[in-house]
Amino acid sequence: MEKHIEVSMLCQIYGKLLTEKQCELINDYYNNDLSLSEIAENNQITRQAVRDIIKKGENKLFEFEEKLQFMKKMLDQEKQIQAILLELNKLQETSSDKKIEKLLNHIRKELICLN
Amino acid sequence: MEKHIEVSMLCQIYGKLLTEKQCELINDYYNNDLSLSEIAENNQITRQAVRDIIKKGENKLFEFEEKLQFMKKMLDQEKQIQAILLELNKLQETSSDKKIEKLLNHIRKELICLN
Repeated sequence: MEKHIEVSMLCQIYGKLLTEKQCELINDYYNNDLSLSEIAENNQITRQAVRDIIKKGENKLFEFEEKLQFMKKMLDQEKQIQAILLELNKLQETSSDKKIEKLLNHIRKELICLN
Repeated sequence: MEKHIEVSMLCQIYGKLLTEKQCELINDYYNNDLSLSEIAENNQITRQAVRDIIKKGENKLFEFEEKLQFMKKMLDQEKQIQAILLELNKLQETSSDKKIEKLLNHIRKELICLN
């Protein structure tokens, strides 16, 4: 997984355990595509300070994931749900019964909501 | 949910963010049903110190849950999975096709693994 996607996901999961400033700068850098210089200017701090705040926040995010593994669990679960959705498609192909089709669509929707 | 069940679940989820001692004493108190006095004796500390360590750990667990809501998400998901399993049972009742039954059993197992 690309680093900016990984950090964004981790920040969505664990962001509330960071300081407000760490969250804000990580979001500016990774989601809003601002450069370190732009962020520095907006916050009236040095480029180095921006880099340090982002680095510290990132390290905390990686540390949380190393200990709690929630992102890994979510990604594993997503794969499993995709596998079940494929099974449901197979089931639908097996049957032409309208009642079964309706039930399958219902189950499919509920499964997608689990994600 | 009873408090000891809640604390045990939270400790399973967030325990790695506590200190080793906090985890150990919470486990002794909530899972191994030791009294504060017994834990104090085993650790050669005062009863009040045991109470403080457990309280501090508990507070951290509740704080993590308040911010991250992982236990809530897991419990909600479990309910949704139970609802889907009920739908699958309905589906099975609708059909007497052996092929469908086999596919349903497979899907059921995969769903239970999601828990």
